[in-house]
Amino acid sequence: MSLKPSPLAPAGFPDLPPVAGARLAVAAAGVRYQGRDDVLLAAFDPGTTAAGVFTRSKTAAAPVLWCRRALAEGAGAARGLLVNAGNANAFTGAAGEAAVTTCVEAVAKVLDCAPQAVHVASTGTIGEPLPAPRIVAAVEGLAGRLGSADYRAAATAIGTTDTFPKGATRTCAIDGVPVRINGIAKGSGMIAPDMATMLAYVVTDAALPAPVLEALLKRGVATSFNAITVDSDTSTSDSLMLFATGAAGNAPVEDPRDRRLKGFRAALDDLLKDLAHQVVRDGEGATKFVEIRVRGATSQGAAKAIGLAIANSPLVKTAIAGADANWGRIVMAVGKSGQRVERDRLKIAIGGHLITDNGAPVAGYDEAPVAAHMQGQEIRIEVDCGLGRGAFTVWTCDLTHGYIDINADYRT
Amino acid sequence: MSLKPSPLAPAGFPDLPPVAGARLAVAAAGVRYQGRDDVLLAAFDPGTTAAGVFTRSKTAAAPVLWCRRALAEGAGAARGLLVNAGNANAFTGAAGEAAVTTCVEAVAKVLDCAPQAVHVASTGTIGEPLPAPRIVAAVEGLAGRLGSADYRAAATAIGTTDTFPKGATRTCAIDGVPVRINGIAKGSGMIAPDMATMLAYVVTDAALPAPVLEALLKRGVATSFNAITVDSDTSTSDSLMLFATGAAGNAPVEDPRDRRLKGFRAALDDLLKDLAHQVVRDGEGATKFVEIRVRGATSQGAAKAIGLAIANSPLVKTAIAGADANWGRIVMAVGKSGQRVERDRLKIAIGGHLITDNGAPVAGYDEAPVAAHMQGQEIRIEVDCGLGRGAFTVWTCDLTHGYIDINADYRT
Repeated sequence: MSLKPSPLAPAGFPDLPPVAGARLAVAAAGVRYQGRDDVLLAAFDPGTTAAGVFTRSKTAAAPVLWCRRALAEGAGAARGLLVNAGNANAFTGAAGEAAVTTCVEAVAKVLDCAPQAVHVASTGTIGEPLPAPRIVAAVEGLAGRLGSADYRAAATAIGTTDTFPKGATRTCAIDGVPVRINGIAKGSGMIAPDMATMLAYVVTDAALPAPVLEALLKRGVATSFNAITVDSDTSTSDSLMLFATGAAGNAPVEDPRDRRLKGFRAALDDLLKDLAHQVVRDGEGATKFVEIRVRGATSQGAAKAIGLAIANSPLVKTAIAGADANWGRIVMAVGKSGQRVERDRLKIAIGGHLITDNGAPVAGYDEAPVAAHMQGQEIRIEVDCGLGRGAFTVWTCDLTHGYIDINADYRT
Repeated sequence: MSLKPSPLAPAGFPDLPPVAGARLAVAAAGVRYQGRDDVLLAAFDPGTTAAGVFTRSKTAAAPVLWCRRALAEGAGAARGLLVNAGNANAFTGAAGEAAVTTCVEAVAKVLDCAPQAVHVASTGTIGEPLPAPRIVAAVEGLAGRLGSADYRAAATAIGTTDTFPKGATRTCAIDGVPVRINGIAKGSGMIAPDMATMLAYVVTDAALPAPVLEALLKRGVATSFNAITVDSDTSTSDSLMLFATGAAGNAPVEDPRDRRLKGFRAALDDLLKDLAHQVVRDGEGATKFVEIRVRGATSQGAAKAIGLAIANSPLVKTAIAGADANWGRIVMAVGKSGQRVERDRLKIAIGGHLITDNGAPVAGYDEAPVAAHMQGQEIRIEVDCGLGRGAFTVWTCDLTHGYIDINADYRT
């Protein structure tokens, strides 16, 4: 499938210097796509810790089941990461689990590590047997070329319907020691925020125990990957992992709330949000990036539910695609969220222009500046419920003919 | 807006004879549309009882608020029904409530009845003031022409983006006395099953107390209007009302579970399902009618949640639009439902062809007959969770370019 780059794509892939302790290689294994890299192998130095958050789907793919088990059995140790694009190895039964074992053992052998230190992911079509032999055949060559690929090549190799590779980098300090964080992600459809969405990998040279990584990741994902939606559909393969090689040499920090981690937390959160926004900007068929800020709700959960009701409404999303300032559909979506609202306290603004108050349009409402805002690529919707202190922000994109084009015949 | 008839439209509007005790009239009041009837007045003989189910939206429209109150204060009496198309009188604040009062009082005057016996509904754009004077100006003329309109004209007058008028009729007997039930409906977008969907009115000449009507309606709606979805969006105006004029002269029945009502219950349920299916068949942009049967779930609620997760998935709906037998997306949707499933017990069939079992495609799976079924206009998806006795069937349509065309610029 050849797709035009999203009109919302960033100007270019950012400059991601290597992270000490992590080496990358990519290969064209022909899992499904021809003539492009489709397998990524990352190798981490001994002592690397890891944490992950995964799809909450009840039909999670075999690689997700493996990673959960490996993280638990291996106490968060990580030496290798193997990702393929083109086949999700989901709903493939016992054969799918055997394929994971085969791939994991191949990587464990070339990296000379325990299988539990090898993490895997597959993304692509659901329900087709994974051609593990093709991947295994590529592993030895990948091991011989570790360090030859950069993060851009890695992000490109794991993409499917993505129209641009997604990456971000941040620097910060832990207790005065400089630390780098790199992240890559893939994803543009089957994006809904009940988990880490699609595949994202973050690598840092910080020295942090696995439980600290896990706490920081869970915290960071709540307002980044778990706050985006493209189409309300939840993947069987969603995986977000954070690897810390320890090469930076900072002093150990055992408590995720330790104030010495303040800068790291902020940098990680910022990077996760950056990657999550890139996924939305590559939403299938997207032509507009939409931020929905909800406040004044009875709780943060209520604010999130209202935000997602707006973000997932096909009628809101098609109105945005048509640059139609049809705020009545926002009222509808707020109403269907099931959360407590009071018509006469509800304030709705688009592009900073207040539209409703006291249960009706504001006196002398002028649609012209709102319509002008709707013509842009960056749409901002604000909802104030006027009831409490619950606030949450979600991000989404519009629903266009492009989404139908991409998905009405994905497999052919 | 001029739309081509849905390819899923029935051959024609069925023959709906009058129901004794109910008279109809329509008029072109110019609420929003020009050159077409947009107001319906129904008058019921004294003694008519009524029940209604309404949107669960937290931003319900002013007419919905009125009907709930009128039914409670008037003990289910009904003498008049006034419906306009083109303006939903939703999110119109105190002015919207005043507009309802104005219209209700005008009808109460011409029909010489209590305001609480007058029921109203408005459907169309949200957030614009209802031009009540135009409607009131039409009421006196309507009252002089009662009985001049048939059910087809009534169904046509209340339509908005509908491409065909929706009606159904059934006959049955209560205790040997013949009874007729007529129903009309409108709706094609903003259709989601958390309530009676959009506007539907059912009139019978049976003699039944209002509490019995209410019980029968709530029961019937659960597996008809509350089992359909077009786009997962819930209207602010959904109203389904049942009026019983008593003209048939059957003996009183006070218990909705009375066995003498067996035939009436079956006829009503069948009529409601017929109307609900017509709404789906007129789903905005629909080219395929989809039945999703779920069984073997841990409860009926779980089966419904799984069915709706499939029916509301944009990826499933676009695959159906493209006639793509992409059953992996059904697996995805089952997984995101949040309901308990076990991969290895899940059976999925399309068009009667079993596709998955034991957590993977069946041995020797042949896609050809499934692909042939997907080319048709009537798609049947079956999911057996293999866990319990919970079963539910939902109906939906596909998601096509037509939906985007209709909704990206609805107001212009």
